[in-house]
Amino acid sequence: MARVSQEHLDARRRQILDGAARCFARNGFHATSMQDVLKEVDLSAGAVYRYFTGKEDLIRAIVTEVLGELRGAFEAAAVQSPPPPPDALVGHVMKEVLGRRKGLSYEDESGFPRLLVQVWTETLRNDELSAQLREGYDTVRAAWCKVVEAYQTAGMMRTDIPPEHVARTMIGVAQGFCAQQALFGPVPVEVLQNGLRGLMSMGQQPR
Amino acid sequence: MARVSQEHLDARRRQILDGAARCFARNGFHATSMQDVLKEVDLSAGAVYRYFTGKEDLIRAIVTEVLGELRGAFEAAAVQSPPPPPDALVGHVMKEVLGRRKGLSYEDESGFPRLLVQVWTETLRNDELSAQLREGYDTVRAAWCKVVEAYQTAGMMRTDIPPEHVARTMIGVAQGFCAQQALFGPVPVEVLQNGLRGLMSMGQQPR
Repeated sequence: MARVSQEHLDARRRQILDGAARCFARNGFHATSMQDVLKEVDLSAGAVYRYFTGKEDLIRAIVTEVLGELRGAFEAAAVQSPPPPPDALVGHVMKEVLGRRKGLSYEDESGFPRLLVQVWTETLRNDELSAQLREGYDTVRAAWCKVVEAYQTAGMMRTDIPPEHVARTMIGVAQGFCAQQALFGPVPVEVLQNGLRGLMSMGQQPR
Repeated sequence: MARVSQEHLDARRRQILDGAARCFARNGFHATSMQDVLKEVDLSAGAVYRYFTGKEDLIRAIVTEVLGELRGAFEAAAVQSPPPPPDALVGHVMKEVLGRRKGLSYEDESGFPRLLVQVWTETLRNDELSAQLREGYDTVRAAWCKVVEAYQTAGMMRTDIPPEHVARTMIGVAQGFCAQQALFGPVPVEVLQNGLRGLMSMGQQPR
């Protein structure tokens, strides 16, 4: 048997993950069969089962990867110093997230938001994935709390509000924007940034 | 055959819808069988099929109802005059939405956010429901645009930002908060309201 390079193995694994993610983004985890995945990646069952034991294994790998990417993007945005204001921070994360996974795109849209909504639904019925999601959310929330504390220390935001409440709200804005992209199609990130600038202009003075 | 009052018919229909919605909120539309629904509502197949032709029919009825309730809550909040500031507006809608469907609750949580995430996922693969969702979103967005215009006219918000961008962002905050409730359990609405107040204090002065 010919030796197969690690590079080749990695590329093949990537090809399967991307194809499966496209299927899942389109039709959801439940309605997608392994047959659909094989057809999408144009590989034999033998070739795919060499990398993944089945659909559940593929789902776990994809959800883990998606959650890891989200967590990375949210954490990376929060380490900038001084922290950018919310419109820049959230905009940065959204551009990062939507620009990823080019292999997932179809019909000229990023497939990532659709995949994310599917991931949310999957975690509702899967305790293991739910725990992963929760851990990522806790970590991101802690990082974004530090950002909000920096706003308050710098006199940019009133200080009588728990940083965690603002962190949750900023993360919520990003989550809601992802849901809108999934449900209603692409909208430029600038829309969200403008919206935040509008809210930030409402003249409740820092105390 | 004994005559059955309309009131009785309505109550029975309600009982079936609530039971099915509990099942769907718990396990999703796909993983729930009609057997699960019959068990949950403790009725015979004959009794249930008198009202609904099958699972798809039940799903359609529930999604339509959920979308109608959301639309109603978002529209009602927007007709207040003068319009309340974003923290009060979004808070009002969220309390309204989370307080509904007491029949849906389980383990002391509102089941509505979980049901909503399931509804989102369902609309991703169902064009008819997707069109309903889109129509409701368009209507709500138009109503909230008027609110933002009122902020700008009253000098409460900078006027160089398209009202629609702010409306989308405020709706996104509510959607993201719903997603958080579904994924991570209940959080008081005051958290979101405080978060918005924090953002609104960031001192970008109205122009």
